[in-house]
Amino acid sequence: LITMHPQLEELIDVCLNHDISHIILAGGLPGAPAIKRAKDGGAKVVCFAPTLALAKRLTRQGADALVIEGAEAGGHIGPVATSILAQEILPHIEDVPVFIAGGIGRGDAVLAYLEMGASGCQLGTLFVCATESIAHENFKKAFIRASARDAVPSVQLDPQFPVIPVRALQNDATREFQQTQRGVIDAFDRGEVDQTEAQLKIENYWAGALRRAVVDGDVETGSLMAGQSVGMVKEEKPVAEIISGLIREAVDALTAREQASG
Amino acid sequence: LITMHPQLEELIDVCLNHDISHIILAGGLPGAPAIKRAKDGGAKVVCFAPTLALAKRLTRQGADALVIEGAEAGGHIGPVATSILAQEILPHIEDVPVFIAGGIGRGDAVLAYLEMGASGCQLGTLFVCATESIAHENFKKAFIRASARDAVPSVQLDPQFPVIPVRALQNDATREFQQTQRGVIDAFDRGEVDQTEAQLKIENYWAGALRRAVVDGDVETGSLMAGQSVGMVKEEKPVAEIISGLIREAVDALTAREQASG
Repeated sequence: LITMHPQLEELIDVCLNHDISHIILAGGLPGAPAIKRAKDGGAKVVCFAPTLALAKRLTRQGADALVIEGAEAGGHIGPVATSILAQEILPHIEDVPVFIAGGIGRGDAVLAYLEMGASGCQLGTLFVCATESIAHENFKKAFIRASARDAVPSVQLDPQFPVIPVRALQNDATREFQQTQRGVIDAFDRGEVDQTEAQLKIENYWAGALRRAVVDGDVETGSLMAGQSVGMVKEEKPVAEIISGLIREAVDALTAREQASG
Repeated sequence: LITMHPQLEELIDVCLNHDISHIILAGGLPGAPAIKRAKDGGAKVVCFAPTLALAKRLTRQGADALVIEGAEAGGHIGPVATSILAQEILPHIEDVPVFIAGGIGRGDAVLAYLEMGASGCQLGTLFVCATESIAHENFKKAFIRASARDAVPSVQLDPQFPVIPVRALQNDATREFQQTQRGVIDAFDRGEVDQTEAQLKIENYWAGALRRAVVDGDVETGSLMAGQSVGMVKEEKPVAEIISGLIREAVDALTAREQASG
């Protein structure tokens, strides 16, 4: 569930009415009441923790597991890299399982995070081009063509008009977003729009853009949300093959290590 | 040596005349002639590789070792995170040692990169507050106070005026840089300055700023270049203690692993 959704409580109740066993609260920091409501209803709650202090608070508030998602991830991101969050948080959270997300494209990287104390890893970008994925052919092609440096966060031009950064492949839409922001800020400076209206114009720019790209295949004006691991996506293949590839890379790393130690 | 320095050849010769054994070519991609000159003079050459394709090319051109520095690093950075570069490059470069840099603050992270195939790690931020470091007291205090999310890259406002991103702690100078850029771009749009002059005004903004902060202790108008591992810098202590801490964290990780496997 998206934590900042205005009807979060009702959405939690819908899940509980359907006996959903695990509720993931993402997209904003959940308050204690939301966590309590889900747990009182019998569900396990998984929360995203952007800092160590908040990881500790969420655990105290009853979170049953945490996800640490670094800035390498696709879509809405925080400012801090996965490697940093892993080092800052994993050594200090022992009561609940912690999952690592953002920038993971190989099995030896999964292994490395597990050995640093993670209970698991969450991968998104690597599965966009799965044969089973319903993403439009154009969307998949854009992923297969792209390299890591094509997946860049959106840029906020003015601290007066906050933009939550979204990592996506650069296209006409991301370039035009810069111009739109600048135009709106200039209009605000000239007194033609007020702050609320200006902020709304900036926020509305991306409305429907993900659907336009993923479902309709409009890869130029849609939003191609992608993590930096997109460069490791090289072809369309079944989920089973993607997963067995990850396992093989992890096992190869373990085997190489055993051979090295004699 | 800074590769983009106009007198790179002369600088290489100075090193060779002093029988320097290893020359590190950073800050821009070195051309084949620079690598050859250093090697012909008897030095080993270490190069920074921003992508796998360039890593392979540099190896073919004679680089004796590579450094992979991700976007978590302080100072001038590329767009791609350390974790991604490690996954993309380490499995495919076997002929020369590869060192990993950017965002490393703990020994178990060093261990993880070594086990993914790195020959070593390069840490900068963690040593800024070493007792032996000559950085000004104010500079060290800023590091000790800062958390990872305070170390942010500078932002380019207009694709016409490229800004090589520099990761630094936010202060008056980073905030003013945004305004300076915007002012220069507006002046260019009004035809008051030409493109070259505008670009120069933007580039000159940071001239001398690192020295102002590190040496003079001016932490408001100087540049507080810092990697995201700055949040793991919590006190001033001797280099020996920093290194023994890293080793302890790596050994603890190995011990925990052995205990877990019975």
